[in-house]
Amino acid sequence: MNNKSSTKDLSLSSNERLSVKNKSIFAPKEYDNCRPKGFKIYTFHAGFKKKLNDLLVIVFDEPATSVNVYSRSSTPSAPIIWDKKYNKGKVKSLIVNSGNANAHTGKKGIAIIDYYVDFLSRIVGCKKSEILVSSTGVIGEFFHPKLITNAISKINNQKPVKLIEAAKAIMTTDTYPKVVIKNIKINQTYFKIYGIAKGSGMIHPNMATMLVYIFIDAIVPKRILKKLVKNNLENTFNSISNDSDTSTSDTMILFSLKKTKIDFNIKKNFKVLNTGLFAVMRDLAIKVVKDGEGLSKLLIVHVAKSRSQKQAKKIAFSIINSPLVKTAVSGEDANWGRVIAAIGKSQEKINQNKIQLYFGKYLICKNGMAYNKLNLSKVNNYMKSNTIEISVNLNIGKEKFTAYGNDLTHEYIRINAEYRS
Amino acid sequence: MNNKSSTKDLSLSSNERLSVKNKSIFAPKEYDNCRPKGFKIYTFHAGFKKKLNDLLVIVFDEPATSVNVYSRSSTPSAPIIWDKKYNKGKVKSLIVNSGNANAHTGKKGIAIIDYYVDFLSRIVGCKKSEILVSSTGVIGEFFHPKLITNAISKINNQKPVKLIEAAKAIMTTDTYPKVVIKNIKINQTYFKIYGIAKGSGMIHPNMATMLVYIFIDAIVPKRILKKLVKNNLENTFNSISNDSDTSTSDTMILFSLKKTKIDFNIKKNFKVLNTGLFAVMRDLAIKVVKDGEGLSKLLIVHVAKSRSQKQAKKIAFSIINSPLVKTAVSGEDANWGRVIAAIGKSQEKINQNKIQLYFGKYLICKNGMAYNKLNLSKVNNYMKSNTIEISVNLNIGKEKFTAYGNDLTHEYIRINAEYRS
Repeated sequence: MNNKSSTKDLSLSSNERLSVKNKSIFAPKEYDNCRPKGFKIYTFHAGFKKKLNDLLVIVFDEPATSVNVYSRSSTPSAPIIWDKKYNKGKVKSLIVNSGNANAHTGKKGIAIIDYYVDFLSRIVGCKKSEILVSSTGVIGEFFHPKLITNAISKINNQKPVKLIEAAKAIMTTDTYPKVVIKNIKINQTYFKIYGIAKGSGMIHPNMATMLVYIFIDAIVPKRILKKLVKNNLENTFNSISNDSDTSTSDTMILFSLKKTKIDFNIKKNFKVLNTGLFAVMRDLAIKVVKDGEGLSKLLIVHVAKSRSQKQAKKIAFSIINSPLVKTAVSGEDANWGRVIAAIGKSQEKINQNKIQLYFGKYLICKNGMAYNKLNLSKVNNYMKSNTIEISVNLNIGKEKFTAYGNDLTHEYIRINAEYRS
Repeated sequence: MNNKSSTKDLSLSSNERLSVKNKSIFAPKEYDNCRPKGFKIYTFHAGFKKKLNDLLVIVFDEPATSVNVYSRSSTPSAPIIWDKKYNKGKVKSLIVNSGNANAHTGKKGIAIIDYYVDFLSRIVGCKKSEILVSSTGVIGEFFHPKLITNAISKINNQKPVKLIEAAKAIMTTDTYPKVVIKNIKINQTYFKIYGIAKGSGMIHPNMATMLVYIFIDAIVPKRILKKLVKNNLENTFNSISNDSDTSTSDTMILFSLKKTKIDFNIKKNFKVLNTGLFAVMRDLAIKVVKDGEGLSKLLIVHVAKSRSQKQAKKIAFSIINSPLVKTAVSGEDANWGRVIAAIGKSQEKINQNKIQLYFGKYLICKNGMAYNKLNLSKVNNYMKSNTIEISVNLNIGKEKFTAYGNDLTHEYIRINAEYRS
């Protein structure tokens, strides 16, 4: 028995094995789309998936500057190991395949990358170190790099495609592509920020199971790119959780294209860019969480008046990852006792008698007990909403944090346990 | 609208609201049982549940010595607050109700306890501080203490019952009572250890959602009781997890009865007691995890050759609490990539190329990649077992930890989301 067949059936499910694939209720009706300037997009069907495109190659007109953020997993995938070793933030081409994560594949996984990166570098005409690599999908399965090289050998005969095709080619269990385009105006200069992302299972902060690529069509020095990431990661991609599982492959790359010249050392200009980028990152993060596997509701948890942001974050995630809270939400049950228990299990130093808990705008409890003027029928009605907001005021400080997640449903179990049927 | 009715329908589900209650596949066919010596057991139907007994009173012939371990939740229940404040480890009577946790009930919750403890202390003839109180069930709901006082007013006309009745009276979503009795022989002296426990949802270490009462029918000094708890808690009740949720009400109490005289300062005697108690605690802990809400399989995760026990524990719980691992197990899918991802998300410093992963006795991967001689059909067959053991050798040290949990099923979702039907 060779490696390939021996591991094939032990692997992660892909959406194609599911008998039915229900589109998220939050799937957009319309998509941002365009043919971006400054880089060319090529997509292929390499054969990781049965029919759908599963390979994306982006070629920059001029080498882009990038800042790369990776999973903190202690079992990172081969592409993350490869990127960290070779790429120094100058990027001529990005190559992403979906359907196989090339994770826990050891030296063999690295050799696979070497093979197709070498091939791509010759086609594109750049150094191997000017290529960035990502993979998403099955963990632990080897693939033959010819799947990729055969596909990309035709790249010069192919027409570049629109942005949404890039978002589609990197999908795994996603039920819709995630694209955000934002126009920025600084003084009289206009430029765009383009963003694409994938992710729907194994989503948890640091960095969630996501691939995210954002392209700023302006010249931004690396130092400022780093600052932009630092400013905005915590309240966007590090604020979401689907199932508390973190992947081996999480990657966010922020590119600056060599086109529009603006001086971002000027505070005002930086601020406009920072605000615009935050909007793009936030929007992409929400799109990812709204496509959580099997979700029926979006769950937003605000924790405020905490001693520190860290404390608020810990409590927010303790609530949003609680299976009992998540099942209560999917059951449309205003089961606030479970929220109190989830706050408690954080083991954060708080005073339970000071907690004010709201479901939507409805005060549920204060002074350490149920609020005696609670309008139960209104709260029960609120629980039928597609988006449920739970707000906790700890009343012991001035900090806050908001986390985004979703409910736990039969569909989640079906997707993750029963795909063999 | 009064408090009672306004909170009634917002509360935790109790098993009685479930349309069908499936007994765990691990429910014992026979139960340990006896009428213990040294204390009397009374059970009642107070009215927290519709029909089943929901109130337990234990009266010690002579005041027992106790060591009490409580939930580390920062939103502890009123009984925990009360016990910690008043009880100093001398116990004439223990009173436990099931169906209402008296948690997040503020000052009112404390007043409720005061009322019925005062009543009980007069019936039993002891100080209020010689009574221990526990409650389990709905969070945030008030109850009238007359539910309890009405029931226990008849205590003197009632016959004491057997140990299993005590275990039944404290059940909530449990599908079977948990009782363990162990005979100990030291030199020519015989004595018993009796244990009862409840818990099936909200089970996670420190201290899991459990009530556990263990009675050693021998005189054990408090200092030694403490040592016994310290020795044995970590590898018993702190090794289990059902759904990663920790409750407001977790309590374990170890009692020493004033009967058999043995010198436990003698090392050999202590050792026999320590070993016997470990067996009781381990057996009860496993009984609790085998009754996890909706489980279809018992999941045991061994992590070995770690740098520290703490590291092994963190990784073991990272695996056993991973929704993706839990659904793979329920789907009988040897989805080992998810185990690798779960190891990684612990963010522990390890070397993924040194990991050896086994499902049962089958080596799945080593050298950072799939094992090339894997017998897939045997592994797939193994996944059909009722008990699945996952073993991880990190090969970076000498420490180890074993965690006990279970899979994530449709039945868990049904119990926790759909009980209104």
